[in-house]
Formats: sequence, structure tokens, C-alpha cells
Amino acid sequence: MPAPLRVALIGQKFMGRAHSNAWGQVGRFFELPRRVELSAVAARDERELEAFARRWGWGRSSTDWRDFVTADDIDLVDVGTPNHVHAEPAIALLAAGKHVACEKPLAGTLDHARAMRDAARKAARSSGAQTFVWFNYRRCPAVALAHQLVGEGRLGELYHLRATYLQSWRGPQTPRVWRFQKKFAGSGAHGDLNAHIIDMARFVTGQELAQVSGAVARTFIKRRPRPDGQGMARSDVDDALSFLGSLSGGATASFECSRLAPGHHNRNTLELNGSKGSLRFDFEDMNVLWLHDESEHPRTAGWRRIMCTSAAGKHPYAANWWPDAHLLGYEHGFVNMAADVVRAVAGRKPALPLPDFEDAWQTQRVLEAAMLSATEDRAVRLSEIK
Amino acid sequence: MPAPLRVALIGQKFMGRAHSNAWGQVGRFFELPRRVELSAVAARDERELEAFARRWGWGRSSTDWRDFVTADDIDLVDVGTPNHVHAEPAIALLAAGKHVACEKPLAGTLDHARAMRDAARKAARSSGAQTFVWFNYRRCPAVALAHQLVGEGRLGELYHLRATYLQSWRGPQTPRVWRFQKKFAGSGAHGDLNAHIIDMARFVTGQELAQVSGAVARTFIKRRPRPDGQGMARSDVDDALSFLGSLSGGATASFECSRLAPGHHNRNTLELNGSKGSLRFDFEDMNVLWLHDESEHPRTAGWRRIMCTSAAGKHPYAANWWPDAHLLGYEHGFVNMAADVVRAVAGRKPALPLPDFEDAWQTQRVLEAAMLSATEDRAVRLSEIK
Amino acid sequence: MPAPLRVALIGQKFMGRAHSNAWGQVGRFFELPRRVELSAVAARDERELEAFARRWGWGRSSTDWRDFVTADDIDLVDVGTPNHVHAEPAIALLAAGKHVACEKPLAGTLDHARAMRDAARKAARSSGAQTFVWFNYRRCPAVALAHQLVGEGRLGELYHLRATYLQSWRGPQTPRVWRFQKKFAGSGAHGDLNAHIIDMARFVTGQELAQVSGAVARTFIKRRPRPDGQGMARSDVDDALSFLGSLSGGATASFECSRLAPGHHNRNTLELNGSKGSLRFDFEDMNVLWLHDESEHPRTAGWRRIMCTSAAGKHPYAANWWPDAHLLGYEHGFVNMAADVVRAVAGRKPALPLPDFEDAWQTQRVLEAAMLSATEDRAVRLSEIK
Amino acid sequence: MPAPLRVALIGQKFMGRAHSNAWGQVGRFFELPRRVELSAVAARDERELEAFARRWGWGRSSTDWRDFVTADDIDLVDVGTPNHVHAEPAIALLAAGKHVACEKPLAGTLDHARAMRDAARKAARSSGAQTFVWFNYRRCPAVALAHQLVGEGRLGELYHLRATYLQSWRGPQTPRVWRFQKKFAGSGAHGDLNAHIIDMARFVTGQELAQVSGAVARTFIKRRPRPDGQGMARSDVDDALSFLGSLSGGATASFECSRLAPGHHNRNTLELNGSKGSLRFDFEDMNVLWLHDESEHPRTAGWRRIMCTSAAGKHPYAANWWPDAHLLGYEHGFVNMAADVVRAVAGRKPALPLPDFEDAWQTQRVLEAAMLSATEDRAVRLSEIK
Repeated sequence: MPAPLRVALIGQKFMGRAHSNAWGQVGRFFELPRRVELSAVAARDERELEAFARRWGWGRSSTDWRDFVTADDIDLVDVGTPNHVHAEPAIALLAAGKHVACEKPLAGTLDHARAMRDAARKAARSSGAQTFVWFNYRRCPAVALAHQLVGEGRLGELYHLRATYLQSWRGPQTPRVWRFQKKFAGSGAHGDLNAHIIDMARFVTGQELAQVSGAVARTFIKRRPRPDGQGMARSDVDDALSFLGSLSGGATASFECSRLAPGHHNRNTLELNGSKGSLRFDFEDMNVLWLHDESEHPRTAGWRRIMCTSAAGKHPYAANWWPDAHLLGYEHGFVNMAADVVRAVAGRKPALPLPDFEDAWQTQRVLEAAMLSATEDRAVRLSEIK
Repeated sequence: MPAPLRVALIGQKFMGRAHSNAWGQVGRFFELPRRVELSAVAARDERELEAFARRWGWGRSSTDWRDFVTADDIDLVDVGTPNHVHAEPAIALLAAGKHVACEKPLAGTLDHARAMRDAARKAARSSGAQTFVWFNYRRCPAVALAHQLVGEGRLGELYHLRATYLQSWRGPQTPRVWRFQKKFAGSGAHGDLNAHIIDMARFVTGQELAQVSGAVARTFIKRRPRPDGQGMARSDVDDALSFLGSLSGGATASFECSRLAPGHHNRNTLELNGSKGSLRFDFEDMNVLWLHDESEHPRTAGWRRIMCTSAAGKHPYAANWWPDAHLLGYEHGFVNMAADVVRAVAGRKPALPLPDFEDAWQTQRVLEAAMLSATEDRAVRLSEIK
Repeated sequence: MPAPLRVALIGQKFMGRAHSNAWGQVGRFFELPRRVELSAVAARDERELEAFARRWGWGRSSTDWRDFVTADDIDLVDVGTPNHVHAEPAIALLAAGKHVACEKPLAGTLDHARAMRDAARKAARSSGAQTFVWFNYRRCPAVALAHQLVGEGRLGELYHLRATYLQSWRGPQTPRVWRFQKKFAGSGAHGDLNAHIIDMARFVTGQELAQVSGAVARTFIKRRPRPDGQGMARSDVDDALSFLGSLSGGATASFECSRLAPGHHNRNTLELNGSKGSLRFDFEDMNVLWLHDESEHPRTAGWRRIMCTSAAGKHPYAANWWPDAHLLGYEHGFVNMAADVVRAVAGRKPALPLPDFEDAWQTQRVLEAAMLSATEDRAVRLSEIK
Repeated sequence: MPAPLRVALIGQKFMGRAHSNAWGQVGRFFELPRRVELSAVAARDERELEAFARRWGWGRSSTDWRDFVTADDIDLVDVGTPNHVHAEPAIALLAAGKHVACEKPLAGTLDHARAMRDAARKAARSSGAQTFVWFNYRRCPAVALAHQLVGEGRLGELYHLRATYLQSWRGPQTPRVWRFQKKFAGSGAHGDLNAHIIDMARFVTGQELAQVSGAVARTFIKRRPRPDGQGMARSDVDDALSFLGSLSGGATASFECSRLAPGHHNRNTLELNGSKGSLRFDFEDMNVLWLHDESEHPRTAGWRRIMCTSAAGKHPYAANWWPDAHLLGYEHGFVNMAADVVRAVAGRKPALPLPDFEDAWQTQRVLEAAMLSATEDRAVRLSEIK
């Protein structure tokens, strides 16, 4: 009987809930090499913390994540805090030999991200600690299938990639929470949303972005009500950021995110066109992958709506859940990822490549290049970002 | 601190998993008047049972559900067994004062269903025991919203209802499991699939079926391999059954189910047309409800794709889950229902009407009328079915 | 140089326009064995007639179609009048040796239809005159492709057919035109809309309906304003009629039409499920045919959206029009049919089977059987309708 | 009785057919202030010309468009030739006082376009001759409705525009026709496809592009077979060109075209997001406009699928065609535009603004700016393009 994997979590907000659910559900739907134990949770708001821990089954709670650094009964720490609180705990915990699974983006600033990458390299050598970043959409089965099909060469030479992540955070009445402040979030929609689609693009194509040829950033709503109701305050992050560039293999690539796109709530889309076919994904119909196979005779060729829930079809993670077309939802990507994290920590191969700090660093460089391009109104080669 | 609701489950197959998950998740996502305790699970296959109980957190296990009849530490028993094993445990447990939540359809035969209804009536008077039937699709948020909108008169006078439940169980190579045997299942696709859409139709419209005007049943594949691989055996249930009739308010109503509809895996659809508008639902895009409001000016009138995940929009159960368009899946209907069952047992009002045995008896009558119509090739008034 | 085909038209309303357009356009887009000459048009309303004839290029006009019976300069007469004015001109013109192309349904009553069929049989023997019925949707390219694919066995054994034709004629304020009067139209939505989908079902499957197992007809709005504004008058035809039955090959078949389905304006749909796959058509996205091929591996199987506009793909009639996805519209079905009528009259083979009076008589029998089933509330075998 | 408008056409290929059809159909479906006379057609290929003229009803034919310059019986000349043959005839004909309707883009080069603009200005002053450019998609009813809704302020402040025009010209086996040669076409997909979506964007928003922030052009397939089958030849135009920028009102704007996007054949799309709502159009479902109205309560808010075929709804041009949802196709945009051209020439107001050379010059400047941005890999302000 292998030792359980003892997990601790930092954070109790949106991501705290999503990660808690993942750690709780993973053992029910997956056969795991090590049992998961929900050992401890840390968060600042003491009033809410006890109820949170009880609700999600965390063994104990603490108002200071530093307790985890020295704890003997914790193997992996899940960092589910705002962007400006990623680097410090991650680096300290890695130094203490803990595995670290960090919420995306890797960090709010390039400096933080670089330091985290370096800490991950060092820990890998010294303690063998592993790192993970919660780019959960990789494990949406339709995205995972897209990754496999492209990897098998089903699209041939890639010509075009276009990705959007559109949300609608309503108008100027939405309060100025931390996500609208640069000092906490690093950026606005860009780090929040473009981070996801940059990672998806890299994951599905297996290519890196070579250049950002142009970018446009906008802050349409510059003042928002304070969350405490005491007047207005400045929002100093982008509401939207679009950029255009080239993949390492020569394909054109466009990315666009916005928090001001009415009618879109979680419109995370990816399309690829290649010499042999095309693929299309839209998270708002997340169980579906569209495939156009150019080798089919034009008489019956057409975009195919693949419902990615078939165990018989070997769709990623399908056998762990329900019968075909008994749809999965948002949270399942986190559970699927938790399963792969447990496998990786146990020395097994994950079902699909997992993003570690090294990998997330590449995504962070793209974020930086795009922001630089928007700020300086010029093309930026990725090699400029070090 | 109110006493916990101590739940026991019978069954460990597909529905055993779905119900276990519901009881495990409900306390995490809902504020409940009573905490749920997963007390015990019973199933026949002893080899699998222990692992099942451990995986899902059931307190103890038994190979005989009769243990639950006399158990002091169980308040509610969840019957998740095949159709022919609904009546006996339900009736015995109700007589013992347990609340009973039974998988749908209420029973495989009208006689069983009637006996269960009578037992429920009796228990309600003697012990106050409550009954529930797992018509889980009622608590798919889009279906729940449809129920509310129709109840508010948004469609005006109803003209037409059409419902389908199409699946594809592949061809003749699919083994002859219990679902293909009348003595266990009562019927084939009809009790399995039409039961759901009859319940949905009754729930959403608030009307009963008045008459079945005609029905067609088919068993296209009459012989299937035995599950043990030892030759072929007879399938004596319907692969598909369609029927046509009238609602109590005068609308036309058509229902169709099939296990032989390639390309459809869980295509559970409902459409309503009325004097003021129309509604459309398709489970394979389950987070969405389509609404056409006939009062809009034709210049901008059109089918609206409502993503039923908005807490701000007061979409049923939305506030308990994730932000808008962070989609829900199949299992969430069960969790939502479990929450309402706990509320009902605690004397609170469920978010939406819950189907009890009395209510499920009405659905069973429609199943019977449709089968009779198909068998005798004639119109059948519901009043014939007693 | 072959002699031109001299065409005369009766009618100048909706169908008069659609047919005039077809005869005018056909020579521009098709290479025809005989040039079409628009010789004459007849209609009752003299005030409008001259302008109509000039606009559409008809050589001369008359207020009495009887003029055509004896005219030497007319080869084919196109009957585009209301249903109760089909039989008399068609029979007289056939007796005079004219080819006749009649608007659908063949007639408003079974007696008229039978007499027309008999006249067609007789004329075929005596003068070689040919008959045609304007079931225009057969020549919508997506429907034509469906016909070909089913004919090639691509769906295997047929299990299910479902067809709807839903429109929305707004509410009770719509005036009582001839289409709401039995003495003129024969029936309401049934003859108008079900006629089309019965023909499409027969055309695509190559099968006949064997039995109507049940039917429901409704007249929801019984009084409507007179067109002249002088008070209200009775509508004595069905607003909607649904029926259910069996095809000759054993498949279940359901049909539904309505003029009271808000949100649907010309929702003419057909779906087929068979042992090898499924097909789906919806006129409101008329250039598209959906195909599910059950032989594909489930990993990449899915409904395919075939854009039926590819000349390279040999889509029916595609080479006569525009490049791929430069969409066709409603009127193109009529033009395509006109081309096939010219070919047939010239002794050539039409691109696809054309419905003649004999063929349309079979559709009329189904209309009759369904109406009888609705009226007498019983199953009706087609063999009863003679 | 006003004098007829005597039209001559130059060209007999794809656009020759589309324009001939428009001039032939316009009088049948529209009440026009002047009757259209198809006076003459000119084209180089004498062998095909006579049959073409006869088929489409052109009064006479010529192998030299210069004949039209001095002809007394021609009021308007329609230039339907390749891009490098726009300027010379247009300028000569304008100087002779003819109205000129030119195929898009205005020209293959900026110099040509500027000269044409100047000629139009001069002619307007001297002879009152009018100019028109066949940006036919403006008169697709759904695009026209989008123009109206934005003009009425229904979207509020515009935040984002994204437009694509994706086609699939198959692979490297497609022959090197004039469209792949810079000396004839000026550019590849860019002038062919981006021209359309730039015009649509300007038309629908009423704004100009202020800056191109970045652009990427690609020629993936550099050698193609000669049309005569004699070996291979160089393609020196872009297969695809994407660019990103800002509208004059501050919205972000992205444009992308490609001839190498498998599965897309005429995917001309436009989406707008604004403070009050969003709009979406896709030519491959051209009768539909999607609208999201942000002022609706989130309970029933959603993207609305508006079928833009309603005469009662005052949808542009709907009253001229068929009943609701009796769909229009590609060619109808040309017919609708021809009607507006006739109105404009007769001094009436067109149903919607018509693009003249002045207007098309603005689109040409955007084409130039985007190409410059792609070539020099830098941001380009529109004010640079003179």
C-alpha cells in the first residue's frame, strides 16, 4: 500500500473551491497510484476558514501558509492565491522540498515568473520536487483530443491559429476587486484570459510563438466602485488585449481576450487550419470538438461535431466518468488534472503532458511580449524576452 | 445543530455511482438544513462492494438491503437497482418508516407502480415518510428554467409539445444485459427513456396527458449475445417506441425514444410552442435553453440562446456552482436533486417541485397507455389506465 | 435547332411569381435540350395581369385558362392556382395533349386527385403528355443529396424517420384567406405543409407509408377576420396535424405540421436513422445536410455539416450556380425543377426523379389516411385508401 | 414614362454572370424608377461572347470596351474585369460621362485607385456621372440590418470588431490563374477577401480604421501549375493576410483572410461587441443575424438568431422577395444593389448607402496600410496612406 499523497491548499476563494473539489473527487473517479489526503488549508480570512475546511474535508487549517513550509505531513502544496502571492510561497515551499501546484498565470510579473522557474529548476535537482500549473483547459477532453490529433499530424502543416477568450463582466458598475489592480494582478484580462489560450495554443500545436507582430490593449472603463462602497477607484489594468503573430512553424496566430464582450461569458475558443484539415473548439460547448478532414471527398466532407465523451472512442478521461453524451462540466478539467498530478508525483506518466513552471514560463514570456508590443506599438520577437 | 440525515443506498452500478456522487457532493455546494451522512450501502456483488463503499465514503456495506429495514441509524434509503427490484424494497422500507428515493421509472410494471404508490400514501399517513423518484433531468437548470417560464405564462396557451430521447447503443453486437429483458426491465427504451421525457413534459407544462392517439413500438434487433459470451439470447423489449397524443389543455404532444439512432447519444429534447412563444431544450447542449418570445417586434425577434448558468439571472441552482458559462454536466442534476430531497425531508420547500411516488405513478400510467396503444394499435384514453 | 418548349402559366400570386421566375431563369443557368419560351399567362384579376405578364416576360395574357386548351402555340401548362382549381384545368389540358406541371398538393380532395391521376394515365397513352407536380423541395440540393445517399445504402436498414414542417402565421388576427377554407383548400396546414414532407420522405427513402397508427388534428383559431375587413368568419381547416406510422420497410415515421409554431417560419425538417448512419435536413439552413456515418471510429465520429454547394463534390445542381458556399435560396429549387421538366419533356433523363401525377397520388393517399386517422381516432392502413 | 437605364457590362466570367443576373432580375423583383435595359456586353474571348450575350439577354456584344466610351445608347457601364483592368476603362468611361459600377476592390494598386477616385470627383463635377463599387455583401439583408442597428446606437460604444473571410482553394494543385499573380491582381487573398470585410466593417460601424498595429502575410504555396498544364509557375501574392488595429472610435479591430482554411468556403464573418450589446454575422448562414442585447435581464438574455427575411419586420429588401424564411442566396445581394444603383442614378435615395469610388478609396487605403504593416513589420497609421 503506497503512502498517501498529502495535499495542502492555500486559498479559499473561487480557485480554492475548484481545487478543493478536484482533490476531493479525484479518488472517486480515478484509480490512483497513491491515495490523496486533504491535509490542510491556509487562508487569511479566519472567519470563513473553518467552515471552508470542514465543508471540503481539509484536515486542518491555518491563517499562514508559512506553516506548510516546515510541516512534515504535507507532500504537495496547491497555491490558489491571487497572482502577486504566487512567487513567495511557491519558492519557499519548493526550497523545503514540497511539490507545488500553482494557479495560473505563473505570476503577475516576468520577474516573479523567472524566479519561480529558477526555484523549480533548483528544487528538481536538489529534492526532486515537481511543479505544476493549473492550466485546467488542457484537460477539457475536447482540447486534449485536439492535442492528440494535431500531434498525430492529422492537420498536416499548420497555416493558421486563432484563439479568443471573451467574457462579459458587465459594465462600469462592477467593483474594483484585486483583478482590476496591476499591483495585485500584474495585468487584467491579459494574464487572466490570454494566459489560458496561449497555453492551449502551445499545448495543442506543440509549437512556440516566434514573434508578436502587433498588439492592442484597452482599458475602456477606467474608474470602478470600490468593493467597500466608499467611492470610486482607478482600474489600471487592461480590459482587453489582442495580439497577432507567428508560430515557430510559420503559421499565423491571433489571440484576443476581453472582459467586455456582451453575450460571451466564458468563450474560450481555438481554431486551427492546416494543409490536411481544421479543428475548432469553443468552451461554451465544451464537450464538442469540430474536425474538418480535408482528405474526405467533397461530396460528404464537412465539419464534424465530435462529442468527446466516448470511452469506446478512447476520448481522454472519458472512461472515468459517465456514458457517452452524459456531459462533463467546468470542474472536470481540474479533477482530470489532479489525477495526472498524482500520477506524475508517483512517478507514473500522466495521460497528457502537464504544464510545469518551466513550461508556464514560456507562456509568461508570450504574455510579456504581447504587452510590450501593445505598450510600445511595435513588433516584438520572443527572443527579446529573457 | 439539527440531526444529520442518514442515507443508505441500494445498488452500485451506473446509478449507484451517480447517486453516491450526489450524496457526497451535495454538502459541498449547498447550504443544507441537515448534514448528509452516507451511512450504508447494499448490493449483491460482494467482491466489488467493499471497494465501492470505501471509494464513495459509505459508512458500512451489506449484501442484503433488508438490513436497512430494521436499521436504527438510517433515515432515508435510496433505491438504485434495476426496475424489477424497486417495489419490494421500497414498500418494505416505507412500511418501516424510512424515506425512500427511488430510481426511475417508478417500476417495471403498472402493478408494481400502483403498489408502490399505495405504500407511499399509507406511509405518508402513518409515519410521515416521504418518497422521491430520481427524475434527474428536472434539475438540469435549463429544464428547471423552462418549468418556471411556462408556469409564469410566458408561452401563453400551449399548442404543441414534442419530445425525443434518442440514444445509440450500437448494433446487434451489444450484449443482452438486463435492460433487454422484459422480466427485469418491464420494457426497453420506453421505460428507460420515454419515462424521462414524459416526466419532463409533465413537469415543464404542468399538464397531464389526456390521450394517446397512436403508438408504434419496434424491436429491430431480436437476438443479442449473452453477456457471458455463451451464444445468443432473445431481446424481448422495445428498441424504440413513439407515441402521439393530447395534453389536458389541448396541445398536441409527440414522444419518441430509441436506442438505435446513430449520432445521438443522450439526445433528450423538449420543444413547446404556444400562443406567446416557444421553448426548446436539448440535453446534448444541456446548459442552454432556447426561447422565442412572440411579443418581440419581428425586426429583432429570434430564438434566444440562454446560457442557464447565471446567478445574477437567478437561474435555478446557478448560485451554488461556478461563474457564468463555467458549464455544468450530467451529474449536477443529481446533486441538485439531492439538495432538494434534504430540504424536503427537513420540512423546507425544495427549489422546484420534487416527483414523489404519486407523481411518478402518473408518468407510469402514460407509459402503460402508450405501450397499450402500440400493442393494440388503437387510441387509448388515459382514463382507461387505473 | 430543336423547337422551343412553349410554356403557359395559370396563376399570378405567390406561386405565379415563383414559377415565372423559374421559367425565366432556367435557360440562364442550365444547358437545356430545348429553349424555354414564356408564351402566355392566365389569371382572373385583369387589373394586375398585364403588369405581371410584362414584368416576367410572358408573351401574352388571358383571363381564362380555357384559352390554353385550344391554343396551338403552347406545349406545357403550369397550373399555379389554389388547390380547388387544379383538377379542372389539368384534366382539360391533358385531354388536349398538353404537358401539365401542377402546383402541389395534387388536389384539395381525394376525388379530384384520383381523377387527375386517371387523366394523366389516359393522356400518357393517347398523346404522350407528361405530368409534373411542383414538389420543389426535392430539388433543394441538400434534399437531393440525401436521396442519393439513402439510395446508395449509406444509412443501411432504416429505423426511424421524423419530419416536421412548422410555420408561424401569427395569431388570430391573420385574415381568413382561401387557405383557411376547406371548400377551396381541402385542408389547412395538412395539405399545404404535410404534403411537402410526405413527398420528401417518400423521395428520400424510396419507401411508401404502410400505415398511419394515429393522428391528431387541431384548429386552435376558429374565427378569423374576413380579408375585406367586414367582420369575422369561420376557419374550418386544421391549423396543425401530426401523425405517426410505419414505412413499408418497417421504419417508424412521424410527421408534424403547424401554422402556429412561433419562431419557425419555414422549418421543413427531415431526419433519418438507420443501421449504418443518420441524415438530417432543415430548410431554414437549406444548403446544409448533416450526415452521421456510424462506420467511423467513435474517436472522430460525429455529425458532419455538409455544405451542399460543391461542384467538385458533384452536389446536385451545384455546377449550374455559384462557387462553393455562395449559397442558394428558396427559388433555386423551382429553377432546378424547371430544368428537369424541360429535360423530361425533351426525352432526356432528369437529374433526379420527378414527381408526376401518379407519384403525387401516393402522397395524396397518405394525406387522406392521416386525416381519416385524425377524424376517426384510429389506425388506418394505407390499403384502405383507394 | 422615364427613359430606361441603358446598361453595358465588361466581363463574362464569374462576375460577368453575377452582374448579368442582377441586371436581369432587378426589374422583376423591384419597382424601379427607370426600367433597366441590358444594352451591350464586352469581353475579350470572342468565342464565348455571343452565347453569353444571348443567354443573359444583352442587346449586343463587342470585344473592345472602348466601343462603349463613344456609344450614345449606354448610360451606365458595369466593369466586371480583373483588378488590373479597372482603372483604364473606368476613367475613360467617366470622362465620357457614363456612370460606372466597378467590381471590387476599387483597383489592384493604390495609384490606380487614387486615379479612379480623382476621375470620379472630376466627373461628378463635370457630367454628374455617378460611381459605384460592387461591395455586394452590404446588401446581404443581415449585414444591412446590422448597419441599421449599429446606426441606431443599439450596441452603445463599440469595444471590439473582429472580421474574417476564410476560404479553401484546395492545395498546391490549384492552377496559377490571374488571381495568383501580383501584376494582375495587385494582391492575393488580401484584395480579394479583406477588401470585402474592410468595407463591411466600415459600412456597419460607420467608422474608419485609424491605425494598423500589426499585420502578418503569408504565401504558403509558392509554386502552382500553369493553367495550360505547361509546368509550374510562381505565385507571388499572399495566400493569407491578418491584421490588427483600432477604429476611429477606439474599438479594437482584427481582420483575417485566407485561401487556405479547410472547411471554410465562403466564411465571411463579422462580430461587434459594444457597451450595450453584440452582433454577429456569418455568410455561410447568410440569412441570419445574431444579436445579444445587454439590456435584457440575464434570466432570459441570450444571443438571438434573427432570420432576416421578414417583410413585417421591415428587414432590408425582404418585401421584394419571398415569405419569411424562404431563404435568399448569394446572388440576391447583387440584385439588391442593382436596385439601389438604379434608384441613385434616377436621383432617388437608395435603401442603404452605396459605396462609390470615394468610399472605396478609403477601403483601398486600409488594404494598403495593412500590406505595408505586413511588409515592414511595423505599426502604420492610416494618415500615412495618401
